[in-house]
Amino acid sequence: MIKTGIVGATGYTGYELTQLLARHPQARLVWATSESSAGKRISDLYPSPDDTRLIRFDDAPLAQADVIFFCLPHAASMEAVARARAAGVRAIDLSADFRLSDPQVYERWYATPHTQTDLLKSAVYGLCEVNRENIAGAELVANPGCYPTSVNLGLWPLARAGALGPFIIADSKSGVSGAGRKLRLGSHFVEINENMVPYSIGYAHRHIAEMEMILGRHVPDVQITFSPHLIPVNRGILSTLYVTLDPGLSEQNVRDIYRQAYEHEPFIHLLPSGQTATLRHTVNTNRVAIGVTPLPRPGQWIITASEDNLLKGASGQAVQNLNLMFGLEETAGLL
Amino acid sequence: MIKTGIVGATGYTGYELTQLLARHPQARLVWATSESSAGKRISDLYPSPDDTRLIRFDDAPLAQADVIFFCLPHAASMEAVARARAAGVRAIDLSADFRLSDPQVYERWYATPHTQTDLLKSAVYGLCEVNRENIAGAELVANPGCYPTSVNLGLWPLARAGALGPFIIADSKSGVSGAGRKLRLGSHFVEINENMVPYSIGYAHRHIAEMEMILGRHVPDVQITFSPHLIPVNRGILSTLYVTLDPGLSEQNVRDIYRQAYEHEPFIHLLPSGQTATLRHTVNTNRVAIGVTPLPRPGQWIITASEDNLLKGASGQAVQNLNLMFGLEETAGLL
Amino acid sequence: MIKTGIVGATGYTGYELTQLLARHPQARLVWATSESSAGKRISDLYPSPDDTRLIRFDDAPLAQADVIFFCLPHAASMEAVARARAAGVRAIDLSADFRLSDPQVYERWYATPHTQTDLLKSAVYGLCEVNRENIAGAELVANPGCYPTSVNLGLWPLARAGALGPFIIADSKSGVSGAGRKLRLGSHFVEINENMVPYSIGYAHRHIAEMEMILGRHVPDVQITFSPHLIPVNRGILSTLYVTLDPGLSEQNVRDIYRQAYEHEPFIHLLPSGQTATLRHTVNTNRVAIGVTPLPRPGQWIITASEDNLLKGASGQAVQNLNLMFGLEETAGLL
Amino acid sequence: MIKTGIVGATGYTGYELTQLLARHPQARLVWATSESSAGKRISDLYPSPDDTRLIRFDDAPLAQADVIFFCLPHAASMEAVARARAAGVRAIDLSADFRLSDPQVYERWYATPHTQTDLLKSAVYGLCEVNRENIAGAELVANPGCYPTSVNLGLWPLARAGALGPFIIADSKSGVSGAGRKLRLGSHFVEINENMVPYSIGYAHRHIAEMEMILGRHVPDVQITFSPHLIPVNRGILSTLYVTLDPGLSEQNVRDIYRQAYEHEPFIHLLPSGQTATLRHTVNTNRVAIGVTPLPRPGQWIITASEDNLLKGASGQAVQNLNLMFGLEETAGLL
Repeated sequence: MIKTGIVGATGYTGYELTQLLARHPQARLVWATSESSAGKRISDLYPSPDDTRLIRFDDAPLAQADVIFFCLPHAASMEAVARARAAGVRAIDLSADFRLSDPQVYERWYATPHTQTDLLKSAVYGLCEVNRENIAGAELVANPGCYPTSVNLGLWPLARAGALGPFIIADSKSGVSGAGRKLRLGSHFVEINENMVPYSIGYAHRHIAEMEMILGRHVPDVQITFSPHLIPVNRGILSTLYVTLDPGLSEQNVRDIYRQAYEHEPFIHLLPSGQTATLRHTVNTNRVAIGVTPLPRPGQWIITASEDNLLKGASGQAVQNLNLMFGLEETAGLL
Repeated sequence: MIKTGIVGATGYTGYELTQLLARHPQARLVWATSESSAGKRISDLYPSPDDTRLIRFDDAPLAQADVIFFCLPHAASMEAVARARAAGVRAIDLSADFRLSDPQVYERWYATPHTQTDLLKSAVYGLCEVNRENIAGAELVANPGCYPTSVNLGLWPLARAGALGPFIIADSKSGVSGAGRKLRLGSHFVEINENMVPYSIGYAHRHIAEMEMILGRHVPDVQITFSPHLIPVNRGILSTLYVTLDPGLSEQNVRDIYRQAYEHEPFIHLLPSGQTATLRHTVNTNRVAIGVTPLPRPGQWIITASEDNLLKGASGQAVQNLNLMFGLEETAGLL
Repeated sequence: MIKTGIVGATGYTGYELTQLLARHPQARLVWATSESSAGKRISDLYPSPDDTRLIRFDDAPLAQADVIFFCLPHAASMEAVARARAAGVRAIDLSADFRLSDPQVYERWYATPHTQTDLLKSAVYGLCEVNRENIAGAELVANPGCYPTSVNLGLWPLARAGALGPFIIADSKSGVSGAGRKLRLGSHFVEINENMVPYSIGYAHRHIAEMEMILGRHVPDVQITFSPHLIPVNRGILSTLYVTLDPGLSEQNVRDIYRQAYEHEPFIHLLPSGQTATLRHTVNTNRVAIGVTPLPRPGQWIITASEDNLLKGASGQAVQNLNLMFGLEETAGLL
Repeated sequence: MIKTGIVGATGYTGYELTQLLARHPQARLVWATSESSAGKRISDLYPSPDDTRLIRFDDAPLAQADVIFFCLPHAASMEAVARARAAGVRAIDLSADFRLSDPQVYERWYATPHTQTDLLKSAVYGLCEVNRENIAGAELVANPGCYPTSVNLGLWPLARAGALGPFIIADSKSGVSGAGRKLRLGSHFVEINENMVPYSIGYAHRHIAEMEMILGRHVPDVQITFSPHLIPVNRGILSTLYVTLDPGLSEQNVRDIYRQAYEHEPFIHLLPSGQTATLRHTVNTNRVAIGVTPLPRPGQWIITASEDNLLKGASGQAVQNLNLMFGLEETAGLL
C-alpha cells in the first residue's frame, strides 16, 4: 500500500482526493492537513461519514508518506512542496506553482516571483497521456490545470502531427466547483443558478499559459483566445475548440490522427463521427470525451472536449499520476 | 405619484422593491440607501441597467418620501423605523421588528430586547387578506415573514371558521433567495445545488412566532411543528400543511370555507379539487396558490400552499400594503 | 384597445404571449387556439389562474382580431397566415416561414417548398431595432428567431458601419425552453440537468440563414460558424461572438459605433467597458445586453450578447412589433 | 466471478446496474436485454463508452447467468421472473411484483391480479438491513421501492423496539430520476426546474403498501400519511418523518435504539445529535443517512432520512442483495 498525505484537504480538490483514496486498492491516506480546520474531522466539514482528523501542516509527519498531494493556492504551494522534497518525499502539486517550466512566464501570469526555481527544473508536467514516460520517474509532478487539460488533450494529437494552425479559439464552460469552496458572490447559488457568466475573457485567464506551453511545443507562435464561462452545474468542463487544420485533411484523416494518439488510452473516449462531447460523457469519471466536427470551409474544424473538472481536471488526474509514479495499474482506483 | 424611499436597497428584497416600483403606475422611488454601497449605483451591484445612486441613511431626505420601506436585518430596523416615524413619514418594515405584538415574545425568539415598544403598539401586521381594514389607516405596517405568509394564508380561513385543530405540521420548502445575499457556505452554489437541506427543525425557527400569533387568535393552544427545508431553486416557498379539522366536514364544506374567505381576493388562487400547489403556480407573481387534499381518516387533511418568497412573501406584499395604505387599486404594479 | 388572437397558444411562446397581453395596457386577447387542447382552458395546461378557453383554428373568429400572433411550427404557419391575410387581418408570425426573403434559401434550410411566395414579398422581418420604419406599416411581420436576434443585434452596428469582417464565430448557449414543450429525451430533466450539450454544430442549424441575411446586407460573403449549446436553465441565450474588425479601431471607436446605433433604444443595454453580458442581465426582460471585449491582437474582438429567448427572442419582440405596427409606445406592456 | 444478466437495461435503474457491475470485483455482466433497443449498444443510448450490445429477452441465454436482475415495469416483471426461475436461475426483481407478500394487497394497489402467487411465496423482501438472513438463501429477492427504503430504514429500529406510535407522516422529496426515463411533461426540464411538485398525496401512492408491510410487523394498525414531492435534482430522496414515540424516551434512549440496530451496518450513517440528513450525505453512495430531532412536546420526534434513489433506493441495494445471496463481502462493488 502506498502511503499518502494531503496538504490542504478541505477544499474541493482535497476532499475529492480523500474520497478517491478511500476507494483506491493500493494507496491509502495516512494524514491530511488543514490550517483553518485542524482538530476537526472531515465529517465536521462535509456531509460525509469520513472521520479523518485534520492536523496542521507543521504537525504532519511528512516522512511517513510515500507521496504527498498539495492542494494549496498558488504561491503558497511552492514553499510547502520544497519542505516535502527536502524531507525526501515525492510530491504531486495541484497548484499552478510547478506547471510552467519558465519561471518568468510564471511570474508574468501569477504576479509573484518563483522562489523555488531549482525545484521547478525537476518538476514534470503531469498531463498523463502526453508525459507518461517522464512522470514514471518523477519526484515532483505538477498536476495540470482543469481548463488546460481539456484543451490540451483535445488538441495535442493534432499539434503533434503538425496539422494544427496557430490560431485557436477555446470557448470553455465550467461548473462552479472549479471556482473552489471559498465564499464569493459569484458562487452564491442565487447569483449563478439560472445564469451563465463569461469571465476573464480577452487573453486574461492564467490557464492560457499552460495551453501555450503544451501546444506551443509543436505549434510555433500559437495564439490562443480562451473564453471561460461559468455555468450552473456543480462539475464538468466543456471546451468548444475552433481550429484551423491542414486543409488537405479529410475527416477520416483527422480521426486517424486521434486514433493513433489515443487508441490505447483508458481515459480518452473518442466519440463516433457526428457526435459531440457533452458534460454527461465524463462527469463523475476520469475520462476526457472528444468529438470531431468539420466545417464547410476546408481546414476549419470544431473539436469538443469534456471532462470532470474535479477528476481528470484535478484530483482524478493526480491519482493517475500517483499510479504512474509508483508503477501501479494506471486505472487503479479510477474506474 | 406616491413618493417612496428604500432603506437597505441592495439585498434581495430591497432590490426586488426597486424593480417593482419601477413598474408601478402610481408610485416611484425617490431615494434608496445602502451603508456598504453608498455612492455606487444599483447597476454596479446587480446585472441591471438601473442607475439609481445609493446614499447613506443619514443622508436620506426622509421627509421627501410619503412612505419608506425598511429592508434591514431585525434589531437594526426598529431604530431606523423610529427615525422615520419621528419625521412623520409612514413606514413599511420588512424586518421582524414590528411583527410580534408582544415584545416579550419578540425578545424570546429574537434574543434582543425591543427598544420601541410604544411604536410597536401602533404597528399593524401587514397580512393583507387578513388585516386589510387596519392596514388602510396604518402609519406603520409590519410586513409579514415569508414562511408565515404561506402558512397563515393557507390556514387562516379554517382557523377563523373554528374548524382547525391545534396540532399543525408545516413542512415547508424554500428557494435560496430566502436566505439572503449574504455569503455563507450553505448558500454556495455547489453546496445547495443537487442537494436539499432541512434546517432549524424542531421548534427552532423564529417564524413560528408569527404563525402562533395569527392562527392562535382563533385556535387556542395552537401547536405548530415547523420544518423549513432549503431546495435548489432561486425563488418560491411550498408549505405542505398537515392539519386536523372538524371531522364532520366534507371536502365541499372545506372548499366553501376557503371560497367564502377568498373568493374576491385578487392574489389567492384556490386550486380545483384534486390539484396541489406547486412553486410554478406562484413564482414571479404576487399570488398564493392553495390546494386542498383529504386523507382517508376523517378530519385529516393536507393543505398545500405556495408563494414567491420575494413577492407575496416579502416585497410584493410590501407593495400591496403600500397600495392599501394609500387607497390605490390593491393590484397596482403587481400584475 | 387592440384586439389580438393567438394561433397555437399552448406552447411556450404562445403561453408567454397570453401572459404579456394580460398585462398590456392597450392590447388584449380576444381568442386563442389550440388544435390538441381545444375545449380546455389555459389553467388546465399550465399552473396558472388564466381561464381563457381554447378553440380550434377553424372556429376562430379571425376578423374580430386587429392582429393575430401565429405560434405554429414552420411550414404549418404559412397556410394559416395566408388565411388571416385573406381575411384582411394583420399578422405577426413567430415561425420561420416568412423570415427569409428568398424562398429558395427557405427551401434549402427548411427542406420544404414555400407555398406563399407572394405573401412572402410583403413580409417585413421584425427585428425592431433594425427595421423599425418598415414594421410600422407592415401587414405581415416575421418575428425573428431567438438565436439570430442575439447575434444580429450584437453585431449589426458593426456591420452597418462597415467595420465587421466576414468570418464570424457565434458560440451560443440557450436555455431549454428554446427547444419547446414537445417531449423528447434531450429535454428530459435528468438528461439536461448537470449537463451541457452542443448540438447542430458545423454549419447545420437553420438559424444561420437569418444571420447571413441580416449581416450579409452589409458584409459581403459573410461566413458564420454557429455553435448552439443547450444549458441547464429555463430561459436565456448568451452568444459569445468572435469577430474581426477594422484593425484601426480603438475600444472607444467600437463603443461609439454601438452608442450611435443604440443610444435611444429602450431595450438595448450596452454594458460599460470591462463587463460582459450574462443571462441575468436580460432574463425576464425584453432587453438585449451587449458587452465589448478587445483581444490583444489588433482587430480581434469578443462581443457578448444576451437575451431572454422567450421575450426579446420571441414573444416579447412580437409584442414590441405589435406596438410598432399600431403606433403604440414601443415599450407598452414590456417594462 | 458471478455471472449476471439484466432484463430491461436501458432505463435508469438498468443502466445504473451496468455501471455498478462494471466496477464490481466479483461479478460481471454476461448479457443485457432491451425490447425497444435490441441490436443497439448502451453507448448508442447513453453518453457512455459502454459497448455492451443489447439483445431481446427471448434471445437471452438465461442459464448462462448465475443471477438475473429484472428492471421491468410492474406487472410485466412477474412473468419474466417466472421464466428465469423455471430455468433455475436466481432472480433479483426491481419491480413491485414480488414485494408485497399478500397478493390481494398487490392487486388493490397495482390494479392488476398477481399471476405468480406460488413464486410470490418464495420471494424474500430485499431490505438488506432488516432481512439479511433470509436474503442469503433466497432464490428470488424482491428489491424494495425507493421511497419505502428511506422510510422503513429510517423507522424500523423504533418499530422493532416497540417505541413507534401508529400515526406516521412521511413528507418525502425525490429527484426526477425516480420517475424514470419515460417521456412525460412532468419530467420535462422546463416544467420541473425551478419548481417543486407534490404528487399522489392523500393516501394515493403505491409505495405506502411496502411501508405498511414492514412497519406493520411491529406496529399494529400503523397509519401512514405519505406525501411525495418532486424536486429539481437528478438523484436523491429525503424523507422528513413525523412520528410519535413512547413519551418516556430521552434523546439518548432513542439514539441507543438506532445504535443497537445499526452500529455494524456499513451503509447506515447515523448522524450526530443536532444534525439532519441532507441529500448530499448519500447521493452517489449506497448509504442511508439518518438524523434524529426531538420536538418540545414529549413523544414527538422528527426523523430525517436520505438516500440515493438509484443506489440504495434501487440498483445499489440490488447489488447489495447479490452480495448477500452469493456470500460475497456485503460492500463489494459499492464503496
